[in-house]
Amino acid sequence: MYSFTCDYTEGAHPEILRALMETNMQQEPGYGEDSFCASARERIRQAIGCPDADIFFLVGGTQTNSTVIDGLPDGCQGVLAAQTGHIAVHEAGAIEFSGHKVLTLPQHQGKIDAEELKAWLKGFFADETYPHMVQPGMVYISFPTEYGTIYSRSELTAIGEVCKKYSLPLFIDGARLGYGLASPEADVTLMDVARFADVFYIGGTKVGALCGEAVVFPKGNSPKHFFTHIKMHGALLAKGRLLGIQFDTLFTNNLYSEISEHAIRMAMSVKKIFAEKGIPFYIDSPTNQQFPILTSEQMARLEGRIAFEVWEPLPDGRFVTRFATSWATTHEAVEALRQLIY
Amino acid sequence: MYSFTCDYTEGAHPEILRALMETNMQQEPGYGEDSFCASARERIRQAIGCPDADIFFLVGGTQTNSTVIDGLPDGCQGVLAAQTGHIAVHEAGAIEFSGHKVLTLPQHQGKIDAEELKAWLKGFFADETYPHMVQPGMVYISFPTEYGTIYSRSELTAIGEVCKKYSLPLFIDGARLGYGLASPEADVTLMDVARFADVFYIGGTKVGALCGEAVVFPKGNSPKHFFTHIKMHGALLAKGRLLGIQFDTLFTNNLYSEISEHAIRMAMSVKKIFAEKGIPFYIDSPTNQQFPILTSEQMARLEGRIAFEVWEPLPDGRFVTRFATSWATTHEAVEALRQLIY
Amino acid sequence: MYSFTCDYTEGAHPEILRALMETNMQQEPGYGEDSFCASARERIRQAIGCPDADIFFLVGGTQTNSTVIDGLPDGCQGVLAAQTGHIAVHEAGAIEFSGHKVLTLPQHQGKIDAEELKAWLKGFFADETYPHMVQPGMVYISFPTEYGTIYSRSELTAIGEVCKKYSLPLFIDGARLGYGLASPEADVTLMDVARFADVFYIGGTKVGALCGEAVVFPKGNSPKHFFTHIKMHGALLAKGRLLGIQFDTLFTNNLYSEISEHAIRMAMSVKKIFAEKGIPFYIDSPTNQQFPILTSEQMARLEGRIAFEVWEPLPDGRFVTRFATSWATTHEAVEALRQLIY
Amino acid sequence: MYSFTCDYTEGAHPEILRALMETNMQQEPGYGEDSFCASARERIRQAIGCPDADIFFLVGGTQTNSTVIDGLPDGCQGVLAAQTGHIAVHEAGAIEFSGHKVLTLPQHQGKIDAEELKAWLKGFFADETYPHMVQPGMVYISFPTEYGTIYSRSELTAIGEVCKKYSLPLFIDGARLGYGLASPEADVTLMDVARFADVFYIGGTKVGALCGEAVVFPKGNSPKHFFTHIKMHGALLAKGRLLGIQFDTLFTNNLYSEISEHAIRMAMSVKKIFAEKGIPFYIDSPTNQQFPILTSEQMARLEGRIAFEVWEPLPDGRFVTRFATSWATTHEAVEALRQLIY
Repeated sequence: MYSFTCDYTEGAHPEILRALMETNMQQEPGYGEDSFCASARERIRQAIGCPDADIFFLVGGTQTNSTVIDGLPDGCQGVLAAQTGHIAVHEAGAIEFSGHKVLTLPQHQGKIDAEELKAWLKGFFADETYPHMVQPGMVYISFPTEYGTIYSRSELTAIGEVCKKYSLPLFIDGARLGYGLASPEADVTLMDVARFADVFYIGGTKVGALCGEAVVFPKGNSPKHFFTHIKMHGALLAKGRLLGIQFDTLFTNNLYSEISEHAIRMAMSVKKIFAEKGIPFYIDSPTNQQFPILTSEQMARLEGRIAFEVWEPLPDGRFVTRFATSWATTHEAVEALRQLIY
Repeated sequence: MYSFTCDYTEGAHPEILRALMETNMQQEPGYGEDSFCASARERIRQAIGCPDADIFFLVGGTQTNSTVIDGLPDGCQGVLAAQTGHIAVHEAGAIEFSGHKVLTLPQHQGKIDAEELKAWLKGFFADETYPHMVQPGMVYISFPTEYGTIYSRSELTAIGEVCKKYSLPLFIDGARLGYGLASPEADVTLMDVARFADVFYIGGTKVGALCGEAVVFPKGNSPKHFFTHIKMHGALLAKGRLLGIQFDTLFTNNLYSEISEHAIRMAMSVKKIFAEKGIPFYIDSPTNQQFPILTSEQMARLEGRIAFEVWEPLPDGRFVTRFATSWATTHEAVEALRQLIY
Repeated sequence: MYSFTCDYTEGAHPEILRALMETNMQQEPGYGEDSFCASARERIRQAIGCPDADIFFLVGGTQTNSTVIDGLPDGCQGVLAAQTGHIAVHEAGAIEFSGHKVLTLPQHQGKIDAEELKAWLKGFFADETYPHMVQPGMVYISFPTEYGTIYSRSELTAIGEVCKKYSLPLFIDGARLGYGLASPEADVTLMDVARFADVFYIGGTKVGALCGEAVVFPKGNSPKHFFTHIKMHGALLAKGRLLGIQFDTLFTNNLYSEISEHAIRMAMSVKKIFAEKGIPFYIDSPTNQQFPILTSEQMARLEGRIAFEVWEPLPDGRFVTRFATSWATTHEAVEALRQLIY
Repeated sequence: MYSFTCDYTEGAHPEILRALMETNMQQEPGYGEDSFCASARERIRQAIGCPDADIFFLVGGTQTNSTVIDGLPDGCQGVLAAQTGHIAVHEAGAIEFSGHKVLTLPQHQGKIDAEELKAWLKGFFADETYPHMVQPGMVYISFPTEYGTIYSRSELTAIGEVCKKYSLPLFIDGARLGYGLASPEADVTLMDVARFADVFYIGGTKVGALCGEAVVFPKGNSPKHFFTHIKMHGALLAKGRLLGIQFDTLFTNNLYSEISEHAIRMAMSVKKIFAEKGIPFYIDSPTNQQFPILTSEQMARLEGRIAFEVWEPLPDGRFVTRFATSWATTHEAVEALRQLIY
């Protein structure tokens, strides 16, 4: 049985476990003040080309989204996101829990459009009653999106310009950032992301780590008291070393990029397998999540041998499914899929 | 250099790392639905003698306190705690962030007193204006307390009776539970804790794990939607296996008790060392935190060789200090301390 | 200059001012424990035919919506509403401020549809990942809606059945309740509203009062601690008499119904005026808000003489406008409008 | 029967009711954009000598405290107050509801002490672990306090200096401001209050109005989006005119001062009555609340004729009571008290 259900079905990249073993009895201070966090921060600053970046290590994605967005200075500010954005749908109200409304924009294969964003903002401020409504305080995008798609450089530039015009910080959710950047279609780099975003995070949980997301304020522009703010959100890990060691490992010898590239190679193989069998896709995804449309018969054939996620039923009886690869996906699993699907 | 600054200066117990290694590539579902979490839950149910207990694995202490207390059905309910309780002082307002006030009671070496609790409640409801005030909704105690002290069976019984009389759930913060139960002065067991508490947690972070706290509702009495509630608090770990594996290991072959007992043996050695040198204690702690009162000279002698925490200065120029032991404390470290202090 | 911009442009019905004058120096306790509130509660209980109803007087609409919805026992529960619902758009995030997400449904002239509600709920629980999402905890509708439309008895019955099936309380926002019930097209009464709703409020601010909304839990089903909850929301008026006197007056001698009927007569006159001039409507509203579509020329003719609200521009250059009548609208104003519009 | 139970037992000053009557049918915009609010703002700006002040009219005290304090830019900031401060005790957790902790200081007859404030702040920042604790974000004092006492000019100066040194805004709760300023012992004026405070409010509810508190940011220093913030808190009154008319009246021809002075004259008479009968006071209050200590016999004699509040029982069987006067207290009531107490 091989599983493609998601990109967090295994533990951690072996290098990470090795590092945890080797450093295990080294005594270090808690709360992110350990030497591993310091080293990891330095490596990330170099990787993104921002020597002044503020970097904080949090544990998980929902937590990170909630903590960053609640860094907005006023509860009456909301966050603009695609209606399919993770924060709009799958976070159990974590954003609203901290008092902020998610203002939704139309989505195009999971992405927002700079022109629609601008139109929304223009319309908002054109309405005289706008002070009676939630104030736009931030723009949230995910890279790649929940549908595996990625923004191009020109799309990011356009969104960035709208944000600048309206003085809205741009927040890039990078829970799967590595997989987005490793895509053959990506025309931006990690340094570019750091230049476009006012705040973003480098996902660890889905890209080789046991847990962990590195929040980056590229220009040293973290809100005052952000450390306390993290603790208030229950997001401060006592043994911060667990996060420091992992990111230090991931940003040593290009490991983060390499394992992301592996996942993308596996995903492209999976994509090709489906395409060659004439199986259509719900969305043309260039990253580690593929969304083939399967018939019940096709799904039955995989049962008990290949696990995947059923995304949603289609009116014609077929199903949108999701096959995710990751740093841990084996050639063996991909070959098994090739044999079983037709 | 040996550090006694706190009980989370090392990584994890080697058995835990071994289990992480061995299971690393096993594919498992996320969010606590993996087989390790299931096994860990079953082992804990057996250890506490509560076959119907609801058990959830969270990541850290502040997060757990905030998530459990916010399970109270109304924001206008507060939680009663000692004025030195962790939630009252050292959690950056995490409890208030979720809307609940911490109502403080006097502390006696970190503990609340059943009679004072009863008097507070009686006084509260005797005041006709009580509906204008925060309603008492829960009683919080820590075992052991922030000062290393532990409640006796009779003290817990008395507190439990007051809670019952006023229909207040009793929440026991067990961030260091193992160390409390392993104390030579403890006259309660883990099963007793599960009987006294309406909800409690078994601390992993400070007792051998990299991270993790196991929240237990002994009578299957978790609030409806508690899973969603955990996610809303940003406290749901994607790779729940990380917590499941750790608690499964800790509750196999009595590991949790054994490593707790080791820490206490080390603490008692440390205590004896200070006592034999005639050094007084700020508090007579029977657990893994010891609070000797040191002079500047004594502290200077340890500098660069033995690290510890300076708790607070005393008017006479001496200092209350804290020396913590843990599952990881070595005989070597204790011996070094013995040589250096006098 | 006559204004039809909204239904709160004047002070209070003269009977209310008279009652305030007459009772002014009578000494009464605060916080809603005065004799006027008691009397008003009794009159409302009679008017709705619910002798056991719990009734609380709050000050304004946004406050009332926020306080009632936050009575939900868990922050991870959201409230279902039309995407045009007042709580979804025009309350500055007051619902999210108290931690609850507004889950939106399609709207049909401001109304939700029972079948769509059922389909949403069925779809929600059919998705295996539903515990990762905001849990539906309440259904919110307004009567009349933000577009002046009203639910029929059969529509309310159908919605009520879905709510029952899914154990969701039905909350009816009655900020303009009187105007809805006085509509010639209404086939439900105040007693019916009290039977359909699990909680609703009788709007005072827009129907003759200076301020005030009467929240009714028809079956005595108010949440425990609701008084404290109101205070926590900053919604408890010290001089509760101000609200008691107003509702006592409004529910004496049918005043609430009578002044509502006056507003509707005026609205129907306004509607007829536009219709007779061949002016189309954006929505066919049977209540006190009318939405004629005007040209720039028509609007220019009214300028400086008749005030109204410009709702939104249409692509063809015309404008959706809103003309609201109220208890205070004069025949004189309506006649002036008749003269000026063509 | 005469009541001295509190200072909100009557309706409004007759001038206010007269103004409400006279302006009743004048059509005005809502939400504080009416001409009365504009006029009231201007009169207040003149009275406080701050032409640039931002002024907002809210409805009640708890609401105002919660809304102002939640204007702090980060939830992890708390507000420092006397342990007897209204926000610390009698507001049902409204401050915590919006996410902020109340950090308590010792009280001296209801007042905080500048030296103790400074020592607290010094101690806070001296503790290396301070980022793990709620950050001090504001200092709250009430003038007069909950015990009727008032700060002297030198006390306010000293507190203001500490606030400045630590960059903490000073918030003065003026729910009874008029009574404090009219005290024979007051050595500060309204202009002084506006100079000392970064934000304060002028209480209407207890000083002649039906409801209403005027929040003043003397230097035009209101937080961005404060209007939206007010709405989000459910504190924006639709018929803002109700507040505008009242404050416009109160600040015309010195009415606010005059009626405050009347209340103080009545209070001084009441004080003298008790003093002449040899009845001791719990606190020597120079404002409209007096706290005589009565025996059961004395209380029995007043029963059914003079109402007052029983504050708390003393160990010796006597009771601390509260007698409050207001703008509405009559000579007749005071004379009745004189006859009955001995």
